[in-house]
Amino acid sequence: MNTLAASGAAPIKIDLLIRPQWIIPIEPAGVTLSGHALAVSNGRIVALLPNDEALQRFDPRQTIDLPGQVLLPGLVNLHTHAAMSLLRGYADDLPLMRWLSERIWPAESRHAGPDFVRAGTLLACAEMVRGGITTFNDMYFFPDAAAAAARRIGMRAVLGVVVIEFPTSYAADADDYLAKGLAVRDALSGDPLLSFCLAPHAPYTVADKTFRKIATLAAQLEIPVHVHLHETRHEIEESLKLHGVRPLERLRRFGLLGPQLIAVHAVHLDPGEIDLLVHEGCHLAHCATSNLKLGSGIAPMSAIQARGLNFGLGTDGAASNNRLDLFHEMRHAALLAKGASENAEVLGAHTTLRAATLGGARALGLDGRIGSLLPGKAADLCAVRLDEWLIQPCFDPASHLVYVAGREQVTHTWVEGKLVMSGGTPMQISISELLDVAGLWHTCLAS
Amino acid sequence: MNTLAASGAAPIKIDLLIRPQWIIPIEPAGVTLSGHALAVSNGRIVALLPNDEALQRFDPRQTIDLPGQVLLPGLVNLHTHAAMSLLRGYADDLPLMRWLSERIWPAESRHAGPDFVRAGTLLACAEMVRGGITTFNDMYFFPDAAAAAARRIGMRAVLGVVVIEFPTSYAADADDYLAKGLAVRDALSGDPLLSFCLAPHAPYTVADKTFRKIATLAAQLEIPVHVHLHETRHEIEESLKLHGVRPLERLRRFGLLGPQLIAVHAVHLDPGEIDLLVHEGCHLAHCATSNLKLGSGIAPMSAIQARGLNFGLGTDGAASNNRLDLFHEMRHAALLAKGASENAEVLGAHTTLRAATLGGARALGLDGRIGSLLPGKAADLCAVRLDEWLIQPCFDPASHLVYVAGREQVTHTWVEGKLVMSGGTPMQISISELLDVAGLWHTCLAS
Repeated sequence: MNTLAASGAAPIKIDLLIRPQWIIPIEPAGVTLSGHALAVSNGRIVALLPNDEALQRFDPRQTIDLPGQVLLPGLVNLHTHAAMSLLRGYADDLPLMRWLSERIWPAESRHAGPDFVRAGTLLACAEMVRGGITTFNDMYFFPDAAAAAARRIGMRAVLGVVVIEFPTSYAADADDYLAKGLAVRDALSGDPLLSFCLAPHAPYTVADKTFRKIATLAAQLEIPVHVHLHETRHEIEESLKLHGVRPLERLRRFGLLGPQLIAVHAVHLDPGEIDLLVHEGCHLAHCATSNLKLGSGIAPMSAIQARGLNFGLGTDGAASNNRLDLFHEMRHAALLAKGASENAEVLGAHTTLRAATLGGARALGLDGRIGSLLPGKAADLCAVRLDEWLIQPCFDPASHLVYVAGREQVTHTWVEGKLVMSGGTPMQISISELLDVAGLWHTCLAS
Repeated sequence: MNTLAASGAAPIKIDLLIRPQWIIPIEPAGVTLSGHALAVSNGRIVALLPNDEALQRFDPRQTIDLPGQVLLPGLVNLHTHAAMSLLRGYADDLPLMRWLSERIWPAESRHAGPDFVRAGTLLACAEMVRGGITTFNDMYFFPDAAAAAARRIGMRAVLGVVVIEFPTSYAADADDYLAKGLAVRDALSGDPLLSFCLAPHAPYTVADKTFRKIATLAAQLEIPVHVHLHETRHEIEESLKLHGVRPLERLRRFGLLGPQLIAVHAVHLDPGEIDLLVHEGCHLAHCATSNLKLGSGIAPMSAIQARGLNFGLGTDGAASNNRLDLFHEMRHAALLAKGASENAEVLGAHTTLRAATLGGARALGLDGRIGSLLPGKAADLCAVRLDEWLIQPCFDPASHLVYVAGREQVTHTWVEGKLVMSGGTPMQISISELLDVAGLWHTCLAS
C-alpha cells in the first residue's frame, strides 16, 4: 500500500515521466527492470519506481510511453577528437605513425582552424546524439569552437586543454597551448554542461618540463589529465631509447599517476603496469576500434577487468574508426576481449554497458552527476527500440543492446532532461545544415 | 565515337538500367567507377558501361537512378545456420561447448522441427536481404523447410546436406541424415536459385566412416563440403587424444581436402596447415564475430591473406553473432586482421569487399554465376546510400562500405534481377507477418 496515496498527500508536480518497457539503471549493477518509470524534473532524475507507484506519487507535465523500448543512461564517449569527423575515411589502411605524419597532420596544418573545429564538432555532436551519446571527452585544437558546437547541439562536453610541443595555427608552444586552453576554461566556467581536462597529446609529443607543469596544474585545478598512452609498441621503444623508461613509468616520475589520470588506448601494458594503474586509481579509455584499425594492437581487457581497473569506452576520432558510435564500441570491446582471451565469459553485456556509461563518467570525475539512473543525477538518457522486426526475437535487453542493436535503433536522447534527439534527427540543427557543412568541407579537403 | 550509334543500330531492349553514383564491380579488383551504368536483362548482367554509351546502346524498360549510392554485387554469407535466428541472444557470454551443450542443443531438441526451421529461416532471409545479402550457405536440419523460406523471400541459397552422428527429430543416424538431405536435393534440383553442399557438422560430431562416405559422395556429386574445422583449441586437443592427429590431418586422410572443401572458422591453423589448405585449393569461411563471441579465438587472417588462401565471410548463426549482417562481418574481419597482426595494411577495404562477394562465391563454386559484376553473371546486386548525413563526408566509397556504412544504409537488393528488398523492407513478406512469426516463437522458447 502506497503511504503517500493512503495519507492523501497530493501528487508532486514533475516535468516528465518516462515509461519504457525496460530500464537498465546501471546502478545497481546487472539489473534490468520491467514495469518501472523514471521521473524527471528540472533536468534531474527524481525517482525510478514501479509504474503504479509513479502514477500515485507524481503529476507529470509530460508522460512518454515507450513500449518495446529500453531506457538507460546516456552513453559516455571517453575519448574522441570530435572535429576530425571532417576527416572520416580521409586515410585508411595505414599504421598510426604514417597515418599521422603523411595524411592527418598535413591536412590539419592546412585546414584545422576554428571554422574547421566548429564544423567538425557540430557534425560529430549530431552523430553522437543520434547514437545515444550524451557526453564526450574531447581532445583537439580550438576548444572554444568545439564548445560552441556542443552547446548548439545540447551535449555535455569535457573539453581538453590540449598541449603538444609543436606549433599549429592554434598555438605557438606548450605554454601558449596551456594559456589558451585555460583561458577558454575560465571563459566558459559558468556552463553546467561543460567541464575540462588537461590533455597533453602523448608521451612522444610532450616534453618533460611540460608534463611537470601539467602535474602541478592538475593538482591545483583538480581536473583530470587525458593522455594517449602506450598506444603502440613503437611509442614504448622510442621512450626506452630517449628516456630510458617506458612512457607509463615516465609519467609516474612526474607524479601524474592517480585518480585524475585517464590513460587513453593503453594497448601495451604488462601485468605490473596494470597493477600500477589499479594501485594508483587511474582510469583507462579503451578504444577497441581505433586500436584495431591503426594496427596498434589489442588491449589486455580480460586482465584489466579481472584486476578491477576502471575503464570507459572511446571512439577516438572519426579518422581512425570511422564512426562515432558507442554501440559499435560496446560490441567491439565485448567481442574482442572474449576472442583475445579465448574466454567467452569476460566483458559480459552488463559489464560492457557499465563501461559505456558509469565507467566513463567515473574516469571523468562525473560519476556523482551522470553515468547511472540514481535519483539526484542529471537526466542524461537514451531510449532504444528493441521491437524492430530485424532484431527479433529479444530474450534479454542487455544482451540485445550490446550484441544486436545499433545506433539506428536509438529513438530518443536527453541531456539534463532536455530532448536533444528524437526520431533519428538532432533537435537543434537541420539535416540540410549538416549536409551543407559536410559538403563544404568535403570539397575543401578533397581538392 | 560510339560505333553502334554511328552505324544507326537500334538500341537493344533490356529490362533494367541502374545508374548509381558509383559502381564497385569487384572484377577487376580494386576499382570504383563513377558515371557508369549497369544493364540487366532476363536476370543477368548485360553490360557495365559509361552512362552516355548506355543511353545509346540500350532501351531499358525501367531505369533506376541512384544518386549518392554505390552499387556492388550482392553479399555472400558463406556460413550460417539461418533457422537459429529464433535463438538470437538466447544464450550469451558462454564458451562454445557449454553454449552448445547447456543451452543450444537442449533448445533445439525441444523445438527444432520443420516449422521452427521454416520460421527461423524466413526471419533470417528477411534480415539478410535487408542488409544486401543475396546468397547464404546454410547448415541446418530440415533443409526443405529452409528452402521454402529462401524461395519465399527470393534469395539464393546453398543448402547443407547436414550430417551429425546423434539422432534428432530430423534424422536417426548419419545414413539417415545423408539420405534425407540428398532426397531434398533431388526434389529441388530444378530451382536455379538453390544448390547444395555436403555439410558434415564437425570433426568432433562425425565418425570416420561417415567422413569416408562424404568424401565419396563429394567426388561423385561434385558439390562442396562445408564443415566446422579447427574452431577451438579444445576440438584439436580432443582429436589428438582420440585420433592421434589434428582434425585437418584427419580430413586429409579421408581425401577431403581439395577445391570442394570449405573450412568453416579455421581459427587455429599453424603455418604448415595454411600451406596445406593453399596447396589443396581449399577455401575458408571466416566468421570473425562468432569466433570472438564464443571465445574461440582469432584466425590468422594476415598470414592467410599473404599466402593467398581464398576466403569468404560468414555470420554463423544468430545465436552466436547476434546479427546476420555482412557489413558487421566486413568491418570486424578488416579491423581484427589489422589489430591481431599489428599491421594496418592487411585486409584493406577492397580486399574485404572481395571476400564478402567473390571470395564466398568462389568457395561455393558459384564464381561463374555470382560474386562480381561481369557481364553474363546473374544480377545479384545491392545498392547502398553513402549520402546520409551521419556518415558524411565520404572520400572513398570502398572505405565507407567497410568502415562506416551499415546495413541500415542498404536501399535495394536484387536477386537475378528481381528486387527482393527496397526501402528497408523485404518485398515478398509483410513486416507484420515477420513480427508475428518472431513473437510466436519467442513465446514458445521463453516459456
